[in-house]
Amino acid sequence: MIKNDLFLRALKGETVTRPPVWMMRQAGRYLPEFMELKNKYDFFTRCQTPELASEITVQPIRRYGMDAAILFSDILVIPQAMNIDVEMKPNFGPYLPNPIRNEADLANVIVPDIQDSLGYVLDAIKMTKEKLNNEIPLIGFAGSPWTILCYCVQGQGSKNFDLAKGLCFSDPKTAHALLQKITDTTIAYLKEKVKAGCNAIQVFDSWGGMLSPVDYQEFSMQYMQQIVDALKDEIPVILFGKGCWFALNDMAKSGASALGVDWTCSPKNARYLSGGQITLQGNFDPSRLLSPPAAIKKMVKQMIDEFGKDRYIVNLGHGILPNIPIENAGAFIEAVKEYSA
Amino acid sequence: MIKNDLFLRALKGETVTRPPVWMMRQAGRYLPEFMELKNKYDFFTRCQTPELASEITVQPIRRYGMDAAILFSDILVIPQAMNIDVEMKPNFGPYLPNPIRNEADLANVIVPDIQDSLGYVLDAIKMTKEKLNNEIPLIGFAGSPWTILCYCVQGQGSKNFDLAKGLCFSDPKTAHALLQKITDTTIAYLKEKVKAGCNAIQVFDSWGGMLSPVDYQEFSMQYMQQIVDALKDEIPVILFGKGCWFALNDMAKSGASALGVDWTCSPKNARYLSGGQITLQGNFDPSRLLSPPAAIKKMVKQMIDEFGKDRYIVNLGHGILPNIPIENAGAFIEAVKEYSA
Repeated sequence: MIKNDLFLRALKGETVTRPPVWMMRQAGRYLPEFMELKNKYDFFTRCQTPELASEITVQPIRRYGMDAAILFSDILVIPQAMNIDVEMKPNFGPYLPNPIRNEADLANVIVPDIQDSLGYVLDAIKMTKEKLNNEIPLIGFAGSPWTILCYCVQGQGSKNFDLAKGLCFSDPKTAHALLQKITDTTIAYLKEKVKAGCNAIQVFDSWGGMLSPVDYQEFSMQYMQQIVDALKDEIPVILFGKGCWFALNDMAKSGASALGVDWTCSPKNARYLSGGQITLQGNFDPSRLLSPPAAIKKMVKQMIDEFGKDRYIVNLGHGILPNIPIENAGAFIEAVKEYSA
Repeated sequence: MIKNDLFLRALKGETVTRPPVWMMRQAGRYLPEFMELKNKYDFFTRCQTPELASEITVQPIRRYGMDAAILFSDILVIPQAMNIDVEMKPNFGPYLPNPIRNEADLANVIVPDIQDSLGYVLDAIKMTKEKLNNEIPLIGFAGSPWTILCYCVQGQGSKNFDLAKGLCFSDPKTAHALLQKITDTTIAYLKEKVKAGCNAIQVFDSWGGMLSPVDYQEFSMQYMQQIVDALKDEIPVILFGKGCWFALNDMAKSGASALGVDWTCSPKNARYLSGGQITLQGNFDPSRLLSPPAAIKKMVKQMIDEFGKDRYIVNLGHGILPNIPIENAGAFIEAVKEYSA
């Protein structure tokens, strides 16, 4: 049904001639065609207008021909739907003017109806599927409940999310109640995304690496496990935990189809820590795309050799940076397409 | 010669009745007596006035009786001495208005005479030693060359130090020349600190965890190795790399006396990754000091049981946070003093 099914076959662990490739944040600020739309429409307009979101989603595919598309959206649409104000401030990032800091704040947080509150995402998926015309699969995504809690409590990005962790450690009851509301919303949301046509789901635990292994179990993994349990029979799920090397073994046993790893994990360590069987995705340092294109190609070839071409999806170890030259991003993709062992 | 030599004995790997304890940033904003001086004197006045720096250094010792003191200072006194402007902006952190971004910028960077440029630190050490009266050892410190480069190039703190990594990956020659100047300055500086009376040295690689294992070798470890080589016959050296779990094995072979670890490394993983022989230091999550004091005591006891009382120095996994109640910090120290296996 999907013409280029390399990505889906890698998720199943099948043997492939070369690994599939896509890039986290591939629909992003390094692309001139993205910047054109960014300069015309504000962040939420781009997210909430299916014509714009679907156009932005397919822009990098047209230019580079990745093996999977990922819907242009944001993990913070979830708290927004849960009745928590989210603003996107230029040159600052997300800002939540009414953060959740105690039980009273939590009382205002709802588990919303998805069609009512996030129907625009589902429309964007349907429109993107039409544009992709079954050429490649479409990935839908959500933040992990822990990562969403970080923003809901802190109210903005942070070096250490001290307020978010402070709530967890001083008032775990409220923290867990918030995590459960986020989890329930996320599961309902992702199920609707599957119905709308997504072919795989990635859960981003961007701030999981701020927790100790014991606290990770309590405040992140158990909620991601609920998500995997609810979805894995319908669709392949990828778990990506930035800085979560210490949890790879548990993640590998979760029922997820693949695990994302960042560049601090060598391919050898990543295979070892994840038990050697599950499909892995990653892990090129996004800043390494500032090296000259010839050096990028050499490093990508070596990365594939070290991970092995099977049970492997080539990606960055985090989102592509805005200051990457377009030819350097191109060298990354080409190196994979030219790969032979 | 030093009355309480628990810390020095742990660094030598000797058997002790209980592990020693100190806290990174123990002379800091959680202490009301520190805030009194902070409100009266700006950051550089506090660093550059030996009476103030030594007073601040001994404040936490008077209140809690840690087993080691660490000189109040800052890792950015090094670039400042190297002819790079450093400002400390309230509610912002370090700001370097003339960052080093290319070969031309680098030409202005000097390897200074330590007595001329950093004599105030040496005077603060001598004054602190008098105040400590040989009761406990005094730790001197420096940033790792990589971590100092991060600030010199980026010009301020950053989530990903994209500009610093960009220089390394697009113009490695300039990056290495800067790293070598920083290393030469740091070695000369630390040798003077030893002469002035420090009993141990800690090197903080706060941003080493931003690098892949291969890049870590090239841009951080080889320069820390030069520092260890230059100092290890004179004084015990502790290497602390935040997020550097992947480098613990190499660090353990460097000749350092101990390695600091952060809280993402379980005691078992830390012992395994470091080869099981070297003294380890850490690794309580600073945010976990927001738990109730009774819970803190229980977690500290468990942490010591898991690391083992020997070849171990109890510490946090990063600096203590400003919002920690003084009784919670007290519970952390008491739990170690009350420890029995």
